[in-house]
Amino acid sequence: MLPDLVDAVGAEHVVAGDDPAVADLCADEALGVPAGKPAYVVWPADRDEVAAVVRAARAAGASVTARGAGTGLSGAATPDDGAVLVSFARMDRILEVDPVDAVAVVQPGVSLEALDAAAGEHGLTYPVHPGEQSASLGGTVATNAGGMRAVRYGVTRAHVLGLEAVLADGSLVRTGGRLAKVSAGYDLTQLLVGSEGTLALVTEVIVRLHPALPCRRTVLAPFSSAQAVTGAVARVVGAGLAPSVCEYLDGPTMRAICDNAGLALGLPEGLLDADHLLVELAGRRQERVDEDAEELAEVLGSLGAAEVFDLPAGSARRLVEAREKAFWAVKAAGADEVVDLVVPRSAMATFLSRARAAGGTHGARVLGCGHAGDGNVHLAVFQPDPERLAATLHDVFAAGIALGGAVSGEHGVGRAKAHQLAAFGDPVALDVLRRVRGAMDPDGTLNPGCSIR
Amino acid sequence: MLPDLVDAVGAEHVVAGDDPAVADLCADEALGVPAGKPAYVVWPADRDEVAAVVRAARAAGASVTARGAGTGLSGAATPDDGAVLVSFARMDRILEVDPVDAVAVVQPGVSLEALDAAAGEHGLTYPVHPGEQSASLGGTVATNAGGMRAVRYGVTRAHVLGLEAVLADGSLVRTGGRLAKVSAGYDLTQLLVGSEGTLALVTEVIVRLHPALPCRRTVLAPFSSAQAVTGAVARVVGAGLAPSVCEYLDGPTMRAICDNAGLALGLPEGLLDADHLLVELAGRRQERVDEDAEELAEVLGSLGAAEVFDLPAGSARRLVEAREKAFWAVKAAGADEVVDLVVPRSAMATFLSRARAAGGTHGARVLGCGHAGDGNVHLAVFQPDPERLAATLHDVFAAGIALGGAVSGEHGVGRAKAHQLAAFGDPVALDVLRRVRGAMDPDGTLNPGCSIR
Ligand SMILES: Cc1cc2nc3c(=O)[nH]c(=O)nc-3n(C[C@H](O)[C@H](O)[C@H](O)COP(=O)(O)OP(=O)(O)OC[C@H]3O[C@@H](n4cnc5c(N)ncnc54)[C@H](O)[C@@H]3O)c2cc1C
Ligand SMILES: Cc1cc2nc3c(=O)[nH]c(=O)nc-3n(C[C@H](O)[C@H](O)[C@H](O)COP(=O)(O)OP(=O)(O)OC[C@H]3O[C@@H](n4cnc5c(N)ncnc54)[C@H](O)[C@@H]3O)c2cc1C
Repeated sequence: MLPDLVDAVGAEHVVAGDDPAVADLCADEALGVPAGKPAYVVWPADRDEVAAVVRAARAAGASVTARGAGTGLSGAATPDDGAVLVSFARMDRILEVDPVDAVAVVQPGVSLEALDAAAGEHGLTYPVHPGEQSASLGGTVATNAGGMRAVRYGVTRAHVLGLEAVLADGSLVRTGGRLAKVSAGYDLTQLLVGSEGTLALVTEVIVRLHPALPCRRTVLAPFSSAQAVTGAVARVVGAGLAPSVCEYLDGPTMRAICDNAGLALGLPEGLLDADHLLVELAGRRQERVDEDAEELAEVLGSLGAAEVFDLPAGSARRLVEAREKAFWAVKAAGADEVVDLVVPRSAMATFLSRARAAGGTHGARVLGCGHAGDGNVHLAVFQPDPERLAATLHDVFAAGIALGGAVSGEHGVGRAKAHQLAAFGDPVALDVLRRVRGAMDPDGTLNPGCSIR
Repeated sequence: MLPDLVDAVGAEHVVAGDDPAVADLCADEALGVPAGKPAYVVWPADRDEVAAVVRAARAAGASVTARGAGTGLSGAATPDDGAVLVSFARMDRILEVDPVDAVAVVQPGVSLEALDAAAGEHGLTYPVHPGEQSASLGGTVATNAGGMRAVRYGVTRAHVLGLEAVLADGSLVRTGGRLAKVSAGYDLTQLLVGSEGTLALVTEVIVRLHPALPCRRTVLAPFSSAQAVTGAVARVVGAGLAPSVCEYLDGPTMRAICDNAGLALGLPEGLLDADHLLVELAGRRQERVDEDAEELAEVLGSLGAAEVFDLPAGSARRLVEAREKAFWAVKAAGADEVVDLVVPRSAMATFLSRARAAGGTHGARVLGCGHAGDGNVHLAVFQPDPERLAATLHDVFAAGIALGGAVSGEHGVGRAKAHQLAAFGDPVALDVLRRVRGAMDPDGTLNPGCSIR
């Protein structure tokens, strides 16, 4: 296979998988997924090189795993042993930002940060903000990443208008376009979004941009229980306030992220340990945002918030950033696994209490935060013993599924959750999706250890 | 097959396809698609009966076509000859409107009108408004219907959170849930949306609702050209005014819909024949909507609008309704086909002029209107000669595709556009989607004459 890979991308862009120089590329940020042992790592420069790599791997019976920035939390970019790992680091050009149609066309290796900055030059924004802005467009499309602003703008899925991708047989497919909507046959764009590199390798992405909203106000409201936070979220969203951030943080998580960021909010003693709701409002005109912030404060006060802190812009920004870095904080604190189940928004508090109870049963500490506006709960589970950790996770997933939830709201299935998906997903749906996968990749070339198996 | 169908739904809910009582059910509203000749029409009462019908048809080698309200414009609900036509008219219950999670759970036979009214009782709205509010949830999910408010809220696809459906082998599948977002394997919900009854029959739908916006203002701005309208649309959307309606109407269409609705707008002589932009703004607070309407008027004035008419609420509502009925108006005027190509928003005017030129070449009259905020152009083509009509349509589709468009923005492929999709779609994508279809319906039971073939 090596000569074919060298032919495909050039000798200087192929490295053996056991070369220490590529050790960092053999895993992502998932806590429980060990690094893979790829046969080779390659860096294609364009769609044709990607296609040639896929053909070369397939001819040799090797599998192919795509890698964006490797920030994923589910082991989806961790290669199977013997795989060809395809890094998109060289395909990092923003091909176009079109302010008239409000779209951007980018290569998959472009980071969210770079795209949002380029959009910003035209008064636009790409509002998909998972915690890690170094994540790539290819990786976020493949995981259907969400993040804090999804409550207002929707997740990645809502932004992808078209794709160019290489299929398992090396052929090039184009889907969608610079089109606000399409109803012309099954939506292949949507099928590829969230498919974690198992159906195609994305070589170009067309996304929708939004007008940037220059004005914001951020409030932090400590409540006496997660139940009270959940109730408040429904009211805030129901009032039409359209928050751009609507986050839940339990006391320990709040403490951990503030410590991790060196951030002193100056909350009165005791309040830091409450159950917090963090809401950001954004808009085109400051006076409207201010007026809405007052309405918001009233609603939160009437629903039993212990206080409603109107955060100064600097603290607000730093707190939102600290929340984005929650994963690093809990990782630093020694978390053994993070979970991102999604449940109906109204079930979030019940789920949290059941998850904590499961932790209690198995001696695990469970911290919680989450994208409350989406019912997407992020748990950090501390239990070093693998068996007890597995038992905790099983009960946590079972509790979420029993409440009508799904195994992942935004991090994806990857390797970490493939068995949970198999155990808890609708069996008929899984069977259908396996057949779809088989129809698109009959030889199991693309990321075989990942997702629907 | 008859005994099995009778077993499935009861004798009183099976009628022979040649019974004059069901003649109206054998076609939809597509202008160019002749009625089909189903073997039987059945009215199941629940999911189990739907499954039994599918199994009975499949065992007999008959195909199955679902029918909602039959308002579709592409012949997608027109049965193949010998098919079992499944009407969802009896499955018309709103199972739940949940104001806390802002979701509704409905059977497929529920009309948009009924759902929106039920949501309204909770201060919510289901904002999918194609021109025909008698359309069913099942039918709109299957066509991925859009309509005038999609510019603000997105199309059906953006609203469907979960489905229950019967697959080609009669098994029942559940997808998604009351979940704001999911990233747990390929998105089967999204694959079924827009699949026109060819992958599954939908038996239950979970949709997202939005807070209703009580305040509105509507302006009508005649421009000297479609190009000027297109330019204005980009500016209106780009300014962040988030219109809830943003429609283009050429002069003849404006005249036709006003005549059809008996609506006298009282525009100065000459202006009725201009190229019109109709914009509605909606919001929570009247003073903001008013302020935005002034900003809008300024923008439109600065872009060369001949006038900016601030429509009184009554006329505004009637004009929006008349626009929704544009199809009936052009049908009454004798249109031979309607087309709903979608192009990049900025290409709309160019597409319109090329479409008119194509009409000129083949002696066809071409009227245009469209969901301008989405680049979704609706053409009415008048050319009774079938060959010249076909030649016109070919050139029109070729022009749209050359501009980066797709064959349908919202009406779907159905039978009417199956050959255009085959001719103009990405061949690799079509091949993939055929394989997906084959994997999900190997015997070709579900609506075989429709969509991807
Ligand atoms: C601190 C932190 C906070 C986070 N917060 C959030 C959050 O709030 N919300 C959220 O949704 N996520 C969050 N994430 C995880 C998030 O999913 C990832 O950051 C992102 O989606 C992955 O992008 P990536 O480029 O790093 O992809 P990778 O990790 O490299 O890969 C992810 C998947 O995409 C595939 N892939 C990559 N490129 C391509 C391509 N070109 N074609 C096909 N497949 C490809 C890979 O094979 C893999 O399956 C967080 C991560 C961190 C570290
Ligand atoms: C005056 C007028 C204006 C219109 N304006 C618009 C517009 O602005 N935007 C727009 O998008 N559309 C518009 N339409 C067309 C629109 O697509 C349809 O009104 C609607 O989507 C179809 O709903 P229906 O219940 O009538 O479906 P039908 O016509 O009965 O069926 C449509 C498709 O759905 C399938 N189907 C029906 N029920 C099910 C089910 N339970 N499971 C699986 N498949 C099912 C059918 O097999 C068929 O393929 C307009 C139509 C009219 C008559």
